Amino acid sequence: MSVKAEWIAVDWGTSHLRVWAMQGQRAVAEARSDKGMGRLARSGFQGALLELVDDWLAEAPIDVIACGMVGARQGWVEAPYAAVPVAPLSGAPIRVPDTDPRLRAYVVPGLKQVKPADVMRGEETQIAGFLALNTDWDGVICLPGTHSKWVHISAGEVVSFQTFMTGEMFDQFSTVSVLRHSVGEGWDEDAFREAVEMTLSRPETMAARLFGIRASDLLEAVEGSVARARLSGLLIGAELAAARSYWLGQQIALIGASGMSAIYAKALELQGVPAIVADGQRMTLAGLNAARKLLEH
Amino acid sequence: MSVKAEWIAVDWGTSHLRVWAMQGQRAVAEARSDKGMGRLARSGFQGALLELVDDWLAEAPIDVIACGMVGARQGWVEAPYAAVPVAPLSGAPIRVPDTDPRLRAYVVPGLKQVKPADVMRGEETQIAGFLALNTDWDGVICLPGTHSKWVHISAGEVVSFQTFMTGEMFDQFSTVSVLRHSVGEGWDEDAFREAVEMTLSRPETMAARLFGIRASDLLEAVEGSVARARLSGLLIGAELAAARSYWLGQQIALIGASGMSAIYAKALELQGVPAIVADGQRMTLAGLNAARKLLEH
Repeated sequence: MSVKAEWIAVDWGTSHLRVWAMQGQRAVAEARSDKGMGRLARSGFQGALLELVDDWLAEAPIDVIACGMVGARQGWVEAPYAAVPVAPLSGAPIRVPDTDPRLRAYVVPGLKQVKPADVMRGEETQIAGFLALNTDWDGVICLPGTHSKWVHISAGEVVSFQTFMTGEMFDQFSTVSVLRHSVGEGWDEDAFREAVEMTLSRPETMAARLFGIRASDLLEAVEGSVARARLSGLLIGAELAAARSYWLGQQIALIGASGMSAIYAKALELQGVPAIVADGQRMTLAGLNAARKLLEH
Repeated sequence: MSVKAEWIAVDWGTSHLRVWAMQGQRAVAEARSDKGMGRLARSGFQGALLELVDDWLAEAPIDVIACGMVGARQGWVEAPYAAVPVAPLSGAPIRVPDTDPRLRAYVVPGLKQVKPADVMRGEETQIAGFLALNTDWDGVICLPGTHSKWVHISAGEVVSFQTFMTGEMFDQFSTVSVLRHSVGEGWDEDAFREAVEMTLSRPETMAARLFGIRASDLLEAVEGSVARARLSGLLIGAELAAARSYWLGQQIALIGASGMSAIYAKALELQGVPAIVADGQRMTLAGLNAARKLLEH
């Protein structure tokens, strides 16, 4: 309980807050809460952070470096998007004004693409972490998640990217829509593979096949695990169809939670596309380490 | 208030209950509540109905003919699906056992398609109503709604059909997903047209363009009416792409609420496909009238 931090790394998304006490490049303690940016007004951020890190602080101020939706217009401080093509950490993080004197808090800016319009906040830090650990890496990074991203990397810069709502769609369909009556726990590899092939080869069928998950359950009492894998496969196949120009003939790195990355790796493998997998949390920490080197003090 | 019904027509869906006091083929009074099938246990159906129709009843029993999800396994009585190809009203409605002695209640069976698996409950009655009013009509009927249906009609039979979750997807995306921050009231015809063309010609882009609605709002502050029309257009364009084999070169009839039918008619018109429009409620009543002729008493 007497851990003191040299600096503090923060991953602050819409629905989660995760903090690490850092000594050099190493995390020596961590904590988390559900006080994501979506639940906080501007005046609430510092308190939500201090709840988790108060014990780690000394009297002298230390650096706090945060990435994610915390930098949105409604966040702790707005960290304006940098426009691609640009390095994932394109400049110094933005200082949060008027904090507790024990903190010097900074937020990493997100990236934007003007045409087609697209944005990211948080993924740029994971990408920077991956590139710090894999110098001179060119290729495509896929970051599966609530809003999955496909990102073209060349010469250390984000050249272009594309966001898909696949994770959020899976959550909606499996918990809000009529499909919730059919989707259960577990997994069925054959059903997943078949569904991926379906929408990847004929993406227009997605709209038609979704209700089929419910209808086949009503007519044939399909297992909940089959329905789950089928729903996931239809959505990921449609994403892969739309992202084909990103992955075809490319070197792919997946950054994310291990379960989700494994599903994407399987779907890519079915297309004969090999992918390396990097742990999302580890990349976040490596990226925040890289961001710290940019601080101007 | 002293209306008496010769018989009672009932449209009983998942989330609504609508009843009409009928004299011959004419509705002389109507009432509605939100006691849809989704909110009721089997023991609750009769009470929910009597709340609306009690004043219309006499001592002698009268016929009550209902269509919709009321005939599902968890409904008032299960009215098993008839398998296509089959006439939309393929046999006598199913009698509900053990009712109040003032009622002789019946439920119209839905239709099923074995492969690809699909089901309908309620739309078969609207189709029967349309065919009763348009004898010898061959072609394709589209019924837009929460779960829109495309139905191939030949020689008075439903030959095949296909369900799309377009309406439910629109509701989810516009009220639950991150797009809810961007979708507002109103309508923009140009945005709708552009979005329909996009996903109809390249259906794989739907997965990619959905998040673009949010991103372009963040970067360019898009009007809520534009975002609404764009979301609707992306979803309907994708539905039309998947339903192409239904509408291409066909005579189309749209059955539904007038606003929704007008949107689909516009999307079809953009493809050079003319459609006639029939009012959903009127078709339901015509179909229940047709079902009444099948009663065996």
